[in-house]
Amino acid sequence: MPAAAPLPKALAFDVFGTVVDWRTSVTRESAGFLAQIGEDPEDAAAFADAWRAQYIAAMVGMRKSGRAFAVLDVLHREMLEAALRERGVDPAGLAEDLLAEWNRAWHRLDPWPDTVEGLTRLKARFPIVTLSNGNIALLLNMARRAGLPWDAILGAEVSGTYKPDPKAYLHTAEALGIAPLELCLVAAHHGDLAGARAAGLLTAYVDRPDEYGGAPAPDAHYEQAWEWSATSFVELADQLGC
Amino acid sequence: MPAAAPLPKALAFDVFGTVVDWRTSVTRESAGFLAQIGEDPEDAAAFADAWRAQYIAAMVGMRKSGRAFAVLDVLHREMLEAALRERGVDPAGLAEDLLAEWNRAWHRLDPWPDTVEGLTRLKARFPIVTLSNGNIALLLNMARRAGLPWDAILGAEVSGTYKPDPKAYLHTAEALGIAPLELCLVAAHHGDLAGARAAGLLTAYVDRPDEYGGAPAPDAHYEQAWEWSATSFVELADQLGC
Repeated sequence: MPAAAPLPKALAFDVFGTVVDWRTSVTRESAGFLAQIGEDPEDAAAFADAWRAQYIAAMVGMRKSGRAFAVLDVLHREMLEAALRERGVDPAGLAEDLLAEWNRAWHRLDPWPDTVEGLTRLKARFPIVTLSNGNIALLLNMARRAGLPWDAILGAEVSGTYKPDPKAYLHTAEALGIAPLELCLVAAHHGDLAGARAAGLLTAYVDRPDEYGGAPAPDAHYEQAWEWSATSFVELADQLGC
Repeated sequence: MPAAAPLPKALAFDVFGTVVDWRTSVTRESAGFLAQIGEDPEDAAAFADAWRAQYIAAMVGMRKSGRAFAVLDVLHREMLEAALRERGVDPAGLAEDLLAEWNRAWHRLDPWPDTVEGLTRLKARFPIVTLSNGNIALLLNMARRAGLPWDAILGAEVSGTYKPDPKAYLHTAEALGIAPLELCLVAAHHGDLAGARAAGLLTAYVDRPDEYGGAPAPDAHYEQAWEWSATSFVELADQLGC
């Protein structure tokens, strides 16, 4: 932790992978749904990875695509159907209720073991908000289920654009009534932090080595010296004097 | 309480007057600022009323005005300066820091005595969100100071339009992923509830007889039989089975 870094006025959190363990949760849910449609539940982790890989590719290309903003629940559903087609399953042959519930697996992600304790400590000193590509309903349902004590749910849906568009970072600071350099993004992803830094935010890295089930992170090449770096939210709370 | 009313899936709250006692708080703050500029602090309640009266008139006319959306902090500041000019005080002669702090009085409003207990009980069963014309920074600062346990801060800034524009109500339901009839507006104002009902929402009235310091409410003529009616958030929690 560089001693010279000024403390932020608020903390904004990436969510998928940083706050919650999407892979374990989506794998668990997908195993059940795969079994229901006669597919091998043993493939659930690979299916979760395939679903998430589409997301990562889509976010990077979203700005260039010219597509009007659609909330992540809509995009997740399109990606679910594409991931099924990749397996040779025609989603048109599946019940709408099943597909809708499968898609809502992203509303039911479990936090990392240190998440709730760390957020609670950080919230005592700093406003804590989401800066996620997840939509409001998704993040609200997740927060109520997992006990995430957000002060506000901000991010893509409120800003009308997805990270890594600089507007997603800048609009979040503006909505909080503070300057970009007074807002710190907390994320487990070097690519996200690089986007925040390019927009003028402070940055805090939290290591989540199990996010990809041991596979390397797709954005490791963005690694830099961030203002803070911790192995858990509890350690970050220590570093920020909470 | 009509026995036939279906329970909502989420509760959205008007804030100024319903959740917090704006008049007592803005009067207290304005007394200090009036004294600082050499004006009579005894006029603070009348000054608070004059400031708020401008707000009520502005919100009703906002849609017709054609003005691009600006957050309430910006409008409150314009109204503060107008209220000062009405008193014969030229705001151009006052320090910027003083005006900015005076304007932030709206971030420091005290809750009604039953607010925090009632919200906490209601939150155990229902998602609770703001559906306020206040901007995100204002509502977040207010919530942290007063201990208001919102699940999300929604309303004008997220919807890009002010109540009573139907879009403000409809967009809030959409952001929560529910139908308008699954969302209940909780408000102390018959005009606001009439707007919510016209947009298809459920409605719960909470009586706040002290909001205007004993003066009649400006929107009393909109009174109707709402789905629920209570004298406090605690009583509303009883009615909704919380």
